[in-house]
Amino acid sequence: MIKNIRRRAALGLGAAALGVAAVTSVAVNASAAETTTPAQPAASAARGDVVANPSLDIDAALRAAQATLKAAEKDGHRVTVVVLDRSGTVQVQLKGDGAGPQTAESATRKAFTAVSFGQPTSALAGRVTGPGATLRDMPGTLFLAGGVPVTVDRQVVGAIGVGGAPSGDLDERYAEAGAATLR
Amino acid sequence: MIKNIRRRAALGLGAAALGVAAVTSVAVNASAAETTTPAQPAASAARGDVVANPSLDIDAALRAAQATLKAAEKDGHRVTVVVLDRSGTVQVQLKGDGAGPQTAESATRKAFTAVSFGQPTSALAGRVTGPGATLRDMPGTLFLAGGVPVTVDRQVVGAIGVGGAPSGDLDERYAEAGAATLR
Amino acid sequence: MIKNIRRRAALGLGAAALGVAAVTSVAVNASAAETTTPAQPAASAARGDVVANPSLDIDAALRAAQATLKAAEKDGHRVTVVVLDRSGTVQVQLKGDGAGPQTAESATRKAFTAVSFGQPTSALAGRVTGPGATLRDMPGTLFLAGGVPVTVDRQVVGAIGVGGAPSGDLDERYAEAGAATLR
Amino acid sequence: MIKNIRRRAALGLGAAALGVAAVTSVAVNASAAETTTPAQPAASAARGDVVANPSLDIDAALRAAQATLKAAEKDGHRVTVVVLDRSGTVQVQLKGDGAGPQTAESATRKAFTAVSFGQPTSALAGRVTGPGATLRDMPGTLFLAGGVPVTVDRQVVGAIGVGGAPSGDLDERYAEAGAATLR
Amino acid sequence: MIKNIRRRAALGLGAAALGVAAVTSVAVNASAAETTTPAQPAASAARGDVVANPSLDIDAALRAAQATLKAAEKDGHRVTVVVLDRSGTVQVQLKGDGAGPQTAESATRKAFTAVSFGQPTSALAGRVTGPGATLRDMPGTLFLAGGVPVTVDRQVVGAIGVGGAPSGDLDERYAEAGAATLR
Amino acid sequence: MIKNIRRRAALGLGAAALGVAAVTSVAVNASAAETTTPAQPAASAARGDVVANPSLDIDAALRAAQATLKAAEKDGHRVTVVVLDRSGTVQVQLKGDGAGPQTAESATRKAFTAVSFGQPTSALAGRVTGPGATLRDMPGTLFLAGGVPVTVDRQVVGAIGVGGAPSGDLDERYAEAGAATLR
Amino acid sequence: MIKNIRRRAALGLGAAALGVAAVTSVAVNASAAETTTPAQPAASAARGDVVANPSLDIDAALRAAQATLKAAEKDGHRVTVVVLDRSGTVQVQLKGDGAGPQTAESATRKAFTAVSFGQPTSALAGRVTGPGATLRDMPGTLFLAGGVPVTVDRQVVGAIGVGGAPSGDLDERYAEAGAATLR
Amino acid sequence: MIKNIRRRAALGLGAAALGVAAVTSVAVNASAAETTTPAQPAASAARGDVVANPSLDIDAALRAAQATLKAAEKDGHRVTVVVLDRSGTVQVQLKGDGAGPQTAESATRKAFTAVSFGQPTSALAGRVTGPGATLRDMPGTLFLAGGVPVTVDRQVVGAIGVGGAPSGDLDERYAEAGAATLR
Repeated sequence: MIKNIRRRAALGLGAAALGVAAVTSVAVNASAAETTTPAQPAASAARGDVVANPSLDIDAALRAAQATLKAAEKDGHRVTVVVLDRSGTVQVQLKGDGAGPQTAESATRKAFTAVSFGQPTSALAGRVTGPGATLRDMPGTLFLAGGVPVTVDRQVVGAIGVGGAPSGDLDERYAEAGAATLR
Repeated sequence: MIKNIRRRAALGLGAAALGVAAVTSVAVNASAAETTTPAQPAASAARGDVVANPSLDIDAALRAAQATLKAAEKDGHRVTVVVLDRSGTVQVQLKGDGAGPQTAESATRKAFTAVSFGQPTSALAGRVTGPGATLRDMPGTLFLAGGVPVTVDRQVVGAIGVGGAPSGDLDERYAEAGAATLR
Repeated sequence: MIKNIRRRAALGLGAAALGVAAVTSVAVNASAAETTTPAQPAASAARGDVVANPSLDIDAALRAAQATLKAAEKDGHRVTVVVLDRSGTVQVQLKGDGAGPQTAESATRKAFTAVSFGQPTSALAGRVTGPGATLRDMPGTLFLAGGVPVTVDRQVVGAIGVGGAPSGDLDERYAEAGAATLR
Repeated sequence: MIKNIRRRAALGLGAAALGVAAVTSVAVNASAAETTTPAQPAASAARGDVVANPSLDIDAALRAAQATLKAAEKDGHRVTVVVLDRSGTVQVQLKGDGAGPQTAESATRKAFTAVSFGQPTSALAGRVTGPGATLRDMPGTLFLAGGVPVTVDRQVVGAIGVGGAPSGDLDERYAEAGAATLR
Repeated sequence: MIKNIRRRAALGLGAAALGVAAVTSVAVNASAAETTTPAQPAASAARGDVVANPSLDIDAALRAAQATLKAAEKDGHRVTVVVLDRSGTVQVQLKGDGAGPQTAESATRKAFTAVSFGQPTSALAGRVTGPGATLRDMPGTLFLAGGVPVTVDRQVVGAIGVGGAPSGDLDERYAEAGAATLR
Repeated sequence: MIKNIRRRAALGLGAAALGVAAVTSVAVNASAAETTTPAQPAASAARGDVVANPSLDIDAALRAAQATLKAAEKDGHRVTVVVLDRSGTVQVQLKGDGAGPQTAESATRKAFTAVSFGQPTSALAGRVTGPGATLRDMPGTLFLAGGVPVTVDRQVVGAIGVGGAPSGDLDERYAEAGAATLR
Repeated sequence: MIKNIRRRAALGLGAAALGVAAVTSVAVNASAAETTTPAQPAASAARGDVVANPSLDIDAALRAAQATLKAAEKDGHRVTVVVLDRSGTVQVQLKGDGAGPQTAESATRKAFTAVSFGQPTSALAGRVTGPGATLRDMPGTLFLAGGVPVTVDRQVVGAIGVGGAPSGDLDERYAEAGAATLR
Repeated sequence: MIKNIRRRAALGLGAAALGVAAVTSVAVNASAAETTTPAQPAASAARGDVVANPSLDIDAALRAAQATLKAAEKDGHRVTVVVLDRSGTVQVQLKGDGAGPQTAESATRKAFTAVSFGQPTSALAGRVTGPGATLRDMPGTLFLAGGVPVTVDRQVVGAIGVGGAPSGDLDERYAEAGAATLR
């Protein structure tokens, strides 16, 4: 309830709800006493200069990641699941028991590719087959199936990536199972 | 309910306003013909699962960066200016003529420190003077004067960092001059 | 109950329960058909040459991470939580809404420090205050409060790290709240 | 002979015009008072030992970057623009609102490729299609359309790189629009 | 005999045998006196929340690595041998006299590939030949012959990688010779 | 006005003298035939938009580096010498016989520090002794004696760095011996 | 003349003894047939232009590493041991069962420090205690006890580093136990 | 003369001549007085445990690098030249005036490839043309013409790499010109 009210304020660009930390005093030396001295005022921008970048909230991102992992575990496969926001930042990472040492990176890169290009990596994979330079040459990408973008109102707001199943198609099936929890 | 209303409003900003790319077909092999085939649908999230992360728009960020650089140039100092958003991503980087090879990194780290801890680095610098572990040990930070956070409604939405003037205090004065254009 | 039985079997070196992937065919080219041809046999080691390295299972690690995040959110603080296993691999990473761009790295390093030295980082922080070389100089570490090791039978099997609260002591309080779910 | 004459002319440009910082006292500890003690003299080289490396000045580089970004925004595309000098150093970086997380790196690499090989990346892309080793294997490069070198008197002095439009050809069109402001 | 007994104890989740460090006081400042103060208690997990990850013990891993190196030296070839555990951590690395500067990395990557995908790299190499994205695009991998996984009860517990012989097939032959010591 | 005049003079230097590569066709696939097709025209900037960045020419830089190394060898010390230009790019690197594995990095960082702050590192070292944040925290720097800036008309155009002698003061003496060849 | 004689003697060690690979054909594509075509002749240097850099041979390095590990295991401590040659290259790395995730890096850095400065790290640690810049600022170093240089005829030819025991003094005691096998 | 005598001692594994630093006291805090206290004795290895790794001496390496650069300059091409020893360490790096920002890395990688595989990169380039995994996948390599190994008595002791000419064949021609000075 409070949560919703707070959020309404957010639409008015109210503070806490926007998902960023309020200006607070910070931790100093771990062994030092905390200070309550008011901080110097930071520069304050006009609302007209601000844009809003939507992302999944952590509850939704985690719900999707858990559903993804459960779908893989149900099939007996060991995977790592990563949910990225639109800035490429990790929101959730879950390493299933027994997932290989390569899975964190492959899941992250598949999600990065999906959030960058706005399509499932399976759809993108078929497009990077030329003999010369392709999007595969872009650092941080991986054009193997297993990455699924998440959208709101046709805007890309994040992506789910999976690595570790015996095929990329399976990885992507699990990512889709996770994404299905968001609808 | 209220939650969704708020969110619909947020999303009612319309796609472009949200500052994220619409789902479009992507570039493939540079030498290949562009395809117009509709992409596979990405996973679509419910609006209730989305939060909005505010940042300066590029016009405001650039205006601030330019004012920062001009203030330094007016004093005859050669600096690099960096504006980061709340995710730590570079929005604007301007290297003044003759700025040294260390200035890009120092400006970036000062901005990173300011956006992470929500205060000017000059205010933070006095707090990391203990003999043991301090926040200085956190990678990517630099607790020298010259980083200024930018807020909206007391929320940190980004920061301006400057490196290259003969003192950090000067660096920070220029960053503040840039931030002043946002009010 | 069944769980424990399974585990006992696991210690009998039964396969699936050991938390590692069985030898299966692997994903190849994303666009290629999957093969069902049996793989070449890998080298098989004698059981007498094997040691077992315990870690939290993913369910327990996630439970702890969620409890950690909830404790921070309840106080209105925006943090990132990381659970590492004894090899330093990320098992769970959760970025709370609005957590700063420095929190993933600080949470990871606190957990790394705790899992490496087997004590809470708050206890370790007081020990790295000398003027010369200390453990702080070891790469990947961060001796600020907020990292808590997890043990089984006095063995370190992992750690929980938290970054983003206004003080390291708060970070560590949340990590402890997460760890409490494991007892 | 001519060489020395040329050099003297170059050095006759006077200090400030050369675009490098004069020898000044430097910032020390952020909390310390600035010193006005004259610094120890640095080694002074003879003018005959010096060559001049031309680059765009920051005003021109920014003008070009802004024109590039505007051209993309006019078409409704979200891109990042990077201007590099001949040493590969970033002079300007502008991230358009909503540009993806991959765009900073792709724009930088396209500009790096253009400034390294002195041609638009679209022209270069057709040349790296062999089955074996090609220039694509050189680290830091990206042979997708979107990078345009800038010359003065047929000398490469920098490059503009763009990433994020639906095709590399569009990226390059915007880079060319920026370069057009330099003529 | 004793060894097996110890192992059985390990399965009882006895401490030392599990191959992880007991909670001990840690080194502080190198010049400081050691403290004997009991450490703060770390969080203790229930046994039911723990899984065991098997790996070769160091004696077995070294025996295999030595046999691998000897086989290569017998043929007059200069190689580096690496044994990784299932988390991708180096257990043993041996650089034969005269092995080239590339061999440590190639041996490590071959072992990483084998431990990730559970098959000899020679078997995997034939599968990554497509024109588009393949598993070769995953960072840290190398699909040249010379990497051999090690299993226990059909579980992958590690891998041996070799680099430096005149052909990958020779590298792999030596890795197999090392693995043969484990049966 | 004066600005343009200055610039025209600089540009009147003619192409080759400016020390940048002319626009030429580039190497493609190593096994492919070279093409003589004229390249697409790159964007051409107006001379008024260009600044000149002076650096030592390679002959002078090498002369200084050799004199530096000889001075160290004469004393029986094993050092690495690095000459950087104002952008931080290596112009010359010479590793004396028997110089340790740390010397390349220390020489580079000393030169980087000297070229960034325009003073010998010995003069700078005394200024970074505070208990809190100092310039030492800036990445890429090293405030030990052994780095000497090179100037022309009081402009910093590069620096010489030395590592490996038994003391930083000796390192710096050799760097000065090298710089003396430039006067 | 004498110079050549000396050198011939050095080279008279015979090829294999010099510890470098003979020029042989190299591995190509893993799936391709090996070629026996004689390679193009490489450039051949005169013997008078060559110096010899001594290092432990692999048998001695491994013997020392094993003795180091055994000494630690005997005390019940879990450590990683690294032997570096004078170029800083890893010759041997052994991770004892249960050694923490930080031990490989700390052992490597201690060995790097010892091989760079030619003294045990315990002796060096006492010298880097100043408030300003010290050798600790040099990347790759770690001035905690546990690194021991190895010499031949007073020449540093390598070093042994240990990490993971409860104190650096213990780490160094084990390194010395390993070094004792070389006398 | 003295030089030769010293070297003769080297063959007897005498100290200074072996090209490694004698055990000396090291630099401490830059501002501290040098100590003359004899260092603790390092571990001393038996001669029978030592192998000698030959490399070019710095004079020869520099002579070759200079000849390489001169050959390129004579043709009007702007290149960077790198000489590596057998451990992959840079002995000499020379950046010709106007050489592009990519040349240092490409020269280094070509030399690394040549010293690793013992053949000119032009000869190796033809061998890495398969559709699947090849040696090109090994990190640090570059199979474009321009790298030439240097041998003594058919032993690879180093390599010369060149980058920046309009074709790899030209790069390699210059590298060969440098190598010719060694015969």
